[in-house]
Amino acid sequence: MNLPTDPAENLASLIRCPSVTPAEGGALAALAAMLEPMGFAVDRPVFSEEGTPDIENLYARLSGNGPHLMFAGHTDVVPVGDADAWTHPPFAADIRNGEMIGRGAVDMKGGIACFVAALARHLADGTRPRGSVSLLITGDEEGPAINGTTKLLDWAAARGETWDAAIVGEPTNPDAIGDMIKIGRRGSLSGEVTVHGRQGHVAYPHLADNPVRGLLSLVDALLEPSFDGGTKDFQPTNLEITSIDVGNPAVNVIPARAKATFNIRFNDSWEAETIQAEIHNRLDTAAGRRKYRKGRTDRIDFDLVWRDRPSHVFLTRDERLVETLSASVAAVTGRTPALSTSGGTSDARFIKDFCPVVEFGLVGKTMHMVDERVALSDLETLTRIYQRFLQDWFG
Amino acid sequence: MNLPTDPAENLASLIRCPSVTPAEGGALAALAAMLEPMGFAVDRPVFSEEGTPDIENLYARLSGNGPHLMFAGHTDVVPVGDADAWTHPPFAADIRNGEMIGRGAVDMKGGIACFVAALARHLADGTRPRGSVSLLITGDEEGPAINGTTKLLDWAAARGETWDAAIVGEPTNPDAIGDMIKIGRRGSLSGEVTVHGRQGHVAYPHLADNPVRGLLSLVDALLEPSFDGGTKDFQPTNLEITSIDVGNPAVNVIPARAKATFNIRFNDSWEAETIQAEIHNRLDTAAGRRKYRKGRTDRIDFDLVWRDRPSHVFLTRDERLVETLSASVAAVTGRTPALSTSGGTSDARFIKDFCPVVEFGLVGKTMHMVDERVALSDLETLTRIYQRFLQDWFG
Repeated sequence: MNLPTDPAENLASLIRCPSVTPAEGGALAALAAMLEPMGFAVDRPVFSEEGTPDIENLYARLSGNGPHLMFAGHTDVVPVGDADAWTHPPFAADIRNGEMIGRGAVDMKGGIACFVAALARHLADGTRPRGSVSLLITGDEEGPAINGTTKLLDWAAARGETWDAAIVGEPTNPDAIGDMIKIGRRGSLSGEVTVHGRQGHVAYPHLADNPVRGLLSLVDALLEPSFDGGTKDFQPTNLEITSIDVGNPAVNVIPARAKATFNIRFNDSWEAETIQAEIHNRLDTAAGRRKYRKGRTDRIDFDLVWRDRPSHVFLTRDERLVETLSASVAAVTGRTPALSTSGGTSDARFIKDFCPVVEFGLVGKTMHMVDERVALSDLETLTRIYQRFLQDWFG
Repeated sequence: MNLPTDPAENLASLIRCPSVTPAEGGALAALAAMLEPMGFAVDRPVFSEEGTPDIENLYARLSGNGPHLMFAGHTDVVPVGDADAWTHPPFAADIRNGEMIGRGAVDMKGGIACFVAALARHLADGTRPRGSVSLLITGDEEGPAINGTTKLLDWAAARGETWDAAIVGEPTNPDAIGDMIKIGRRGSLSGEVTVHGRQGHVAYPHLADNPVRGLLSLVDALLEPSFDGGTKDFQPTNLEITSIDVGNPAVNVIPARAKATFNIRFNDSWEAETIQAEIHNRLDTAAGRRKYRKGRTDRIDFDLVWRDRPSHVFLTRDERLVETLSASVAAVTGRTPALSTSGGTSDARFIKDFCPVVEFGLVGKTMHMVDERVALSDLETLTRIYQRFLQDWFG
């Protein structure tokens, strides 16, 4: 049996499929072709929702007696950006100076290629693992993420699937393989504050109510004081004003409305509901005390709209999962990975509702960039780490 | 000789000319037809500038032995707005309940109509005034004001015209004729502050520099402390933030740039140059101390661009002009007008470079509104005030 034990060969097959979201591009078919010879049962559910493109997904399972491990990820990639700026074609998987160049090399076809190679090596002696392994792979992680991981999890759960642990193969290492395992993520919330004033002529400010002044008061209350100083496992909660928009082209006119949008990344001092209440409370208090009064004493007239659904904060406390993976990293690289909760959200935020989940993959430095690339030696190192993990976690 | 002694008749002729900027609409021709029988020499210069519509203007002079009085104004009007909302057609000059309804009734065909009637009554006995009277009337006051009063003043001055005093016939009275003479105006300046940050992902704020924080620091320095407490003749200097614009649609992205525009109305504690220096100084100081530091200690990277040319502050100290007009108002109405420098800029800001100038006209309440209208009794009162002024100023 010719098993996919070479991560570079696996990755080259995947890179050559131009699977820019929402296109499948042949990537899931290529992955299925690697998994089926190893005995995996492969499903390719397609999910739809009005107003979004249909998305192909893949769920593959190799059943055994024992615990069930999920490997999760995505074969879709971000656009190539400035195609002319690439030194090698982005879907050619060319190798130069020991690095394979291509869109998705680290984010995250490379992670999938290594996990498949680790599995193939694990199965090379013909034995099945002492448990079940499944791959839950979407084609909609870089896009709206509507017809991807959430629906795939629900679809599998509806068929009776349960999991004991999951690894997401996103590039988690800032500089070198072994830097960092992600064991949780801050929560994320976005909102929009609009202040309603009264339009007028700048020469008669007493006849108008400039909403910009009110908005500045409210924004000030969002920015200070800080929400917390961080926790044992998490960075401090942080709020960024992502936009302020008035859109008034006339310099002699006081506008009627001013709007600010913000995003907050909150740690495990909070839940989505408590941080929302804190924001409401800050805005309500600031609305009553006007920082830039200009003689006004009435409350600032504002409304607050929450955007999208919140992402909840989570921390994976499964010692066996975290310690087995840490030990595998240490055994292969000689380094002790940081257990981090930093950075943005990922599909792990959906998986954590089904089983303990950690994230570990390649080095993220070139992700989303022109000439995205991965060292062949990194592919080999990650494959060995995943292989060691499979042995020890099932062992 | 049938002189135009009835201000209501004069105004009706003018309202019936649909002279929405930049259209002449027959209004200047109608005015010329009133002035020529009284002996005025009428010129109708047309000014042009690339990118703006050609504009018709009028300069009429009746020469005599003695000082030279200018009456200045405009026959162009703002658009009718919601035409269906008018109870009478906006260019019909219908009369209802003792009021004439029509676009321009108070701003400021009415002022012109009254001044012409006052002149006609002054000249009714066949004598010429003991001096010269000129009317400097533009068709571009409500528009870009590029081919209007400034060019007309330069055009007349180039022909050797000089003036001893000027009255602008804009509607200066808030509630009733006799409320207010304007004897000066604050200066006006507009600028745009742009803060340059570094774009990034909201989950990694330490790798980015959110320019909104920097802009909030700078805007705070523009708003507080106040610039002054006002002066004997002027309201306090006031700054309004007229817009803040970032234009970032992505709530997970820290933007690269943030921009605020502002307008400042400054009193005679300042000149355009000193208030500009004060603004620069405030911004420079704030840039060095960052109000929302977030651990940053580098200066805020910003630039400041001044928009358009400044309007300079002015105060008319010509006692004979101001006191003669005040006394005329008092004699006709029994009320002592406030001598004010409040409100927005007007074409008086250009005239003040040529001679002392004051502004006095009708009641402004309905200007620019649907059903703009003037009481016939107000037309008569203003005509008598102007007539009294002509007698006393030349007398």
